[in-house]
Amino acid sequence: MDAVFSPPATKGHVSVARLTRYWYAACASNELSGRPLARTLLGTPLVLFRDGAGRAAALLDRCPHRNVPLSLGRVNRKGLLECAYHGWAFDRDGSCRDVPGLVETGAPRERRCPALHVREQDGVVWIFGDFEATPSTEPLKLGLSGLTGHTVVVRRLTAPATLHATIENALDVPHTAFLHRGLFRGGERHEVKVRVRRSGESVEAEYLGEPRPSGLIGRLLAPGGGVVEHWDRFFLPSVAQVEYRLGQDTHFLITALCCPISDFETQLIAVAAFRTPLPDRLLRLALEPAALLIFGQDTKILAAQTRNIRQFGGEQYHSTAVDFLGPHIWRLLRQAERGEPAENLHEQEVSFFA
Amino acid sequence: MDAVFSPPATKGHVSVARLTRYWYAACASNELSGRPLARTLLGTPLVLFRDGAGRAAALLDRCPHRNVPLSLGRVNRKGLLECAYHGWAFDRDGSCRDVPGLVETGAPRERRCPALHVREQDGVVWIFGDFEATPSTEPLKLGLSGLTGHTVVVRRLTAPATLHATIENALDVPHTAFLHRGLFRGGERHEVKVRVRRSGESVEAEYLGEPRPSGLIGRLLAPGGGVVEHWDRFFLPSVAQVEYRLGQDTHFLITALCCPISDFETQLIAVAAFRTPLPDRLLRLALEPAALLIFGQDTKILAAQTRNIRQFGGEQYHSTAVDFLGPHIWRLLRQAERGEPAENLHEQEVSFFA
Amino acid sequence: MDAVFSPPATKGHVSVARLTRYWYAACASNELSGRPLARTLLGTPLVLFRDGAGRAAALLDRCPHRNVPLSLGRVNRKGLLECAYHGWAFDRDGSCRDVPGLVETGAPRERRCPALHVREQDGVVWIFGDFEATPSTEPLKLGLSGLTGHTVVVRRLTAPATLHATIENALDVPHTAFLHRGLFRGGERHEVKVRVRRSGESVEAEYLGEPRPSGLIGRLLAPGGGVVEHWDRFFLPSVAQVEYRLGQDTHFLITALCCPISDFETQLIAVAAFRTPLPDRLLRLALEPAALLIFGQDTKILAAQTRNIRQFGGEQYHSTAVDFLGPHIWRLLRQAERGEPAENLHEQEVSFFA
Repeated sequence: MDAVFSPPATKGHVSVARLTRYWYAACASNELSGRPLARTLLGTPLVLFRDGAGRAAALLDRCPHRNVPLSLGRVNRKGLLECAYHGWAFDRDGSCRDVPGLVETGAPRERRCPALHVREQDGVVWIFGDFEATPSTEPLKLGLSGLTGHTVVVRRLTAPATLHATIENALDVPHTAFLHRGLFRGGERHEVKVRVRRSGESVEAEYLGEPRPSGLIGRLLAPGGGVVEHWDRFFLPSVAQVEYRLGQDTHFLITALCCPISDFETQLIAVAAFRTPLPDRLLRLALEPAALLIFGQDTKILAAQTRNIRQFGGEQYHSTAVDFLGPHIWRLLRQAERGEPAENLHEQEVSFFA
Repeated sequence: MDAVFSPPATKGHVSVARLTRYWYAACASNELSGRPLARTLLGTPLVLFRDGAGRAAALLDRCPHRNVPLSLGRVNRKGLLECAYHGWAFDRDGSCRDVPGLVETGAPRERRCPALHVREQDGVVWIFGDFEATPSTEPLKLGLSGLTGHTVVVRRLTAPATLHATIENALDVPHTAFLHRGLFRGGERHEVKVRVRRSGESVEAEYLGEPRPSGLIGRLLAPGGGVVEHWDRFFLPSVAQVEYRLGQDTHFLITALCCPISDFETQLIAVAAFRTPLPDRLLRLALEPAALLIFGQDTKILAAQTRNIRQFGGEQYHSTAVDFLGPHIWRLLRQAERGEPAENLHEQEVSFFA
Repeated sequence: MDAVFSPPATKGHVSVARLTRYWYAACASNELSGRPLARTLLGTPLVLFRDGAGRAAALLDRCPHRNVPLSLGRVNRKGLLECAYHGWAFDRDGSCRDVPGLVETGAPRERRCPALHVREQDGVVWIFGDFEATPSTEPLKLGLSGLTGHTVVVRRLTAPATLHATIENALDVPHTAFLHRGLFRGGERHEVKVRVRRSGESVEAEYLGEPRPSGLIGRLLAPGGGVVEHWDRFFLPSVAQVEYRLGQDTHFLITALCCPISDFETQLIAVAAFRTPLPDRLLRLALEPAALLIFGQDTKILAAQTRNIRQFGGEQYHSTAVDFLGPHIWRLLRQAERGEPAENLHEQEVSFFA
């Protein structure tokens, strides 16, 4: 039921951005082996598979014959994706190479299954979100090859929220003192400066003079305290990145490759690269449960936020100076969706109590 | 799917009434303590809480910052309702008194959360169903203070039905012989007279010469038989009341304060006041399970009725002379919804076989 | 969410046919005894019951009084269907014969419950899908009485698919080599001729020179091999029939009486008549689990196909020469739905690799 009495109506944006002609991370490379894999991008069901030569492919997950999902089928001995219902078999370009039982041969065009462009790099399978267009760009390079001595961990997660809400949450600092009280930030507050730089494709927040986070995680990583270097970044269409440095020895570079499953559900492939003075095994033992706990708290809040956004037919957000990145991310998403030209570099500085 | 073949189309009313400028019982006073409480009125999510002085408050359950439900938060040490996400903190008028991290101070109007008028009386927290209007009336007095020697029990229940269907069910006598066969009425039938009086704000049915109910409950309360005095009453917008008297010693006054959660779901706060010659404990031991059994039978029927009403896009009711109150209640609800002036007193008398 | 990027839009049919002025099999005769039975036809809830004389009846499953489903009630001692809420009681024509409590008597027309025409034959209760029209035809005769020495088994099933998709699946041969690999067909392939004959009311595929099916089931039934006679048939509005003969001794006649519960859910009453040289008990022991396994595989595929059809707002089917019956069934359904005159006999011959 719609709300029937008089809460103020929604004004401002509805945080649903639908950007198609961009690269999205569909799955981690090691998720895609001998079996077809079902994924959804912007509400459209897709099937990923590897052909006989091991090349990743992505087709519409609907057989042109009787519309059964091809992801229920298998990759056959010829490296073709075979439908489970009648055995129609497709190559990585979506051409139908076999119709079992049929005397006539050939691969007429109307038996084609739409295919997406695919790239594989940095341990991730990327798809281009348009069946018709040829990509004029390549997927974002994560810069992992330039790192030395780092451990890399990849995890796939799903957030019950829009692309914008998911990314803002991933890059937002002030909520950590409340939602993740004790784990991350909290305790005595210090005035910190934040320098925000927005280009046509990305926006970055750099934190100047931020003390070591006072929570459990901060204490584990830097028992001696100190000042951290810290950047939060967003890259169009859907990449969130957090980087921390503490002296020479400690470096965290966590990149969340987001993919809009639908308007209100977002997949994240988190690629975490880190190097610390602590033994790797010990660090993972401590960080994985903490990361899952934090993600669980965020998921609960995002789900409730999404319910309210849907209930009221959109957001009614009021931002303040401490919402460093959210409004910029929204501006970049909207400009890209409308195909507006990129703006000039924009820079500003804000103070807040961290 | 809509019905596609030819059952006669729905005519007559769709029993959904949406009355906003009225008082509704949101919760029992003792349900509201240190934690915020989520409630829904006419599809709009609300949060109830007590401030530092113990005063009940009701806000829209949506933080103006990022639209997260405030009911997920907490009441902080200053008696403010604090959002779980970023810690924005609100007083009972909905003013935002704190934005953590923000250097700038002040409580600008756009950070306000809409608030409802609230009253607390008769052990019940009442809310006025309009964010904009100032109430020109006060909540209904239940008359509990005039009773002597009565036990009062309060229970909150939810019925899967419209406000009208729930109230008609609560006040309907004939169905007790069928749906609650053996428990309540049933057995030999007697002709009984019913006097119905409708004013502009309420309607009452008075039963004249009704023998003691013959079911289990009747036999328990009045082993010696006798003639009961019995009134069923409805008060706008949503109060149903049943009163029984048997001689000097036995008196039941059960008031159901209904609140439309949505078009097809109704909350009841039942306030049962009773005095009988039986020991209190014994009576409650017998009556509570019986009341729950009766409510369970009603709930099942109301849910099935609601499914049919929704399936067919509305009701197609045919009433007879033994539907004493339902059509009057509907008339009062519709007049109030349309803002029509109250009619003159209306009185009629009907006979039926009880 | 709708698909928002560019898979080719749906063209061609949406396989939902809504034929009303036809007979449908509502239940098996032995399912209908002393209790009312709820069924749904084309989205409309119905209640079936037997009156005092044992005659089957079908009413709209909604009491005209307060719209409660009559299927929650009971058949009373007078053989009337009595509503559970207030006890209104109906005969097989839908006339209201009793309103408990009411002093006035009579059965005015506005208290009538709409009734359907009903027939009982071949162990099946048939209903006519129109409350207003008088049927000018009779239900299809299944021809069971002409069989000698056959065992007859009746089972009721539900498929998560449209009427057309369910029937095409039931009569489709090529999918058996894939979806039911090993159970039914598969292995070495032979060229087989299929003669298809379509009249105004039905279509039949006759298989010429088909070897005994090579799967488990074929080997069980005909250990010595041989050539089978095999027909697949569809009769308007919703009957699928498969017939196999192998020499003098083995005969299978399986008739699926389909009934559209809603656009995307179909009830099947399968009437299987068979005679083989094997002992009955042994055959049933082997065939029932195999039939359930096959139906489970079909159900999974049909559910996934239905999800895709709904997701994309309709089908986008591409048929080939080996889709012998589907396109003909669709043509007959559409002609009937539009009330177009029946076409002349149509006959064609196709080869395929079985």
